Amino acid sequence: MSGTLAVIGLGPGQASQVTPEALEAVATASNLFGYGPYLDRLTLQAGQRRHASDNREELSRAEAALTLAASGSNVAVVSGGDPGVFAMAAAVCEAIENGPPAWRAIDIRIVPGVTAMLAVAARLGAPLGADFCTISLSDNLKPWELIEHRLGAAAKAGFVIALYNPISRARPWQLGRAFALLGECLPPETLVIFGRAAGRPDERLAVTTLAEADPAKADMATCVIIGSSETRKIERGALPPLVYSPRSSSGALSR
Amino acid sequence: MSGTLAVIGLGPGQASQVTPEALEAVATASNLFGYGPYLDRLTLQAGQRRHASDNREELSRAEAALTLAASGSNVAVVSGGDPGVFAMAAAVCEAIENGPPAWRAIDIRIVPGVTAMLAVAARLGAPLGADFCTISLSDNLKPWELIEHRLGAAAKAGFVIALYNPISRARPWQLGRAFALLGECLPPETLVIFGRAAGRPDERLAVTTLAEADPAKADMATCVIIGSSETRKIERGALPPLVYSPRSSSGALSR
Repeated sequence: MSGTLAVIGLGPGQASQVTPEALEAVATASNLFGYGPYLDRLTLQAGQRRHASDNREELSRAEAALTLAASGSNVAVVSGGDPGVFAMAAAVCEAIENGPPAWRAIDIRIVPGVTAMLAVAARLGAPLGADFCTISLSDNLKPWELIEHRLGAAAKAGFVIALYNPISRARPWQLGRAFALLGECLPPETLVIFGRAAGRPDERLAVTTLAEADPAKADMATCVIIGSSETRKIERGALPPLVYSPRSSSGALSR
Repeated sequence: MSGTLAVIGLGPGQASQVTPEALEAVATASNLFGYGPYLDRLTLQAGQRRHASDNREELSRAEAALTLAASGSNVAVVSGGDPGVFAMAAAVCEAIENGPPAWRAIDIRIVPGVTAMLAVAARLGAPLGADFCTISLSDNLKPWELIEHRLGAAAKAGFVIALYNPISRARPWQLGRAFALLGECLPPETLVIFGRAAGRPDERLAVTTLAEADPAKADMATCVIIGSSETRKIERGALPPLVYSPRSSSGALSR
């Protein structure tokens, strides 16, 4: 008898940004898997079991959750933000495709959430208000050359770029290299946003330019947004500036 | 004396996918502006005023909301999905930049929400699980040539592509042209998703291929997701298939 598996997005971190659908899915699970700090956000009831794992163990976490669901349990896997954006939903699908046939019979439900780039963008205005692309800067699972190619293609075509997983202890130079590469096809005054823990008490937001962007300002949990050449900043005196990408475009492409 | 302006994302349409933060922001506004069908989702209290307008009147709606906020009211502008993705946040910023200096003193708050592509992706698996880009197919505010350029650049660089505003009565041919163009650089078996009203009673979801994608299957409210050449479908017998884009990539680019 097959159980259920919910893959749940907990949003950017504030309780007020978790959807009722996500809360309900958490409440009905008997076993909850996830990266420890995401599980720490939850208030579990007596009888709910917690299975914390490291953030680099996505595939083995997915397999453990599917194994338990296949045995008849109601299992949840939690992600920060949205589970479909560089998070657990793809790992669960990959495990199902390569796993035993019984896993295909499990009732899978993905519960979307507010992903980090939307939360960061909201704190500053509308930097993602025009065409944009979303790139994981991690070269753990894809070649760095591919990432460079995508960065260049996106910048030259005038996309705003949101970077996830910009830097980590094991990947210290990639963000600096990305800024250098983008500097070859975007003006030095192009706006760059560093956003971390958007809306939470430990929030860190910074608006700078491509010429002055310092990779050391980012950590693993930072979302970095690089504007297009059309992204603009509105100064507001004592209030924080607004950053937005206009809905309209002249169509002129970057050099 | 300046009032406040909240730009609120109501999510994809289910009440269970509206964040508590959005509900609270709606509850504290005295005047609510928005496209009629989005305002229709709200239960307003006595004394809350409703200002419905057509969905093509984003800038004039933003200006009306800012005018009222500048006079001291607590005003809200509502969007479906997330207000920062092809929605009202950019229109409000644009109005502020070009409006009277007093508008820069208004306390602006953007409340993020679950945007359509995340809700559609969640219903099918993880089609946005790898690098992706998000393009509005509307050429009302940017030249069609720019859209073509971006579609080609994104497909050639191996991005999954999410299209907003794919078609309308005034823009009947653009989606078909986009499919034809993408067919020149992606394999005919590339997966294409049409998603409308994800999770709602009137939900319409379809998974097809680029060779067979029929633009007539989309309307203004459909989100169309075009996979990369690496996006995969897992058949599950009686259960609906899962579609996902693997976290890993070989790095091979499309022709």
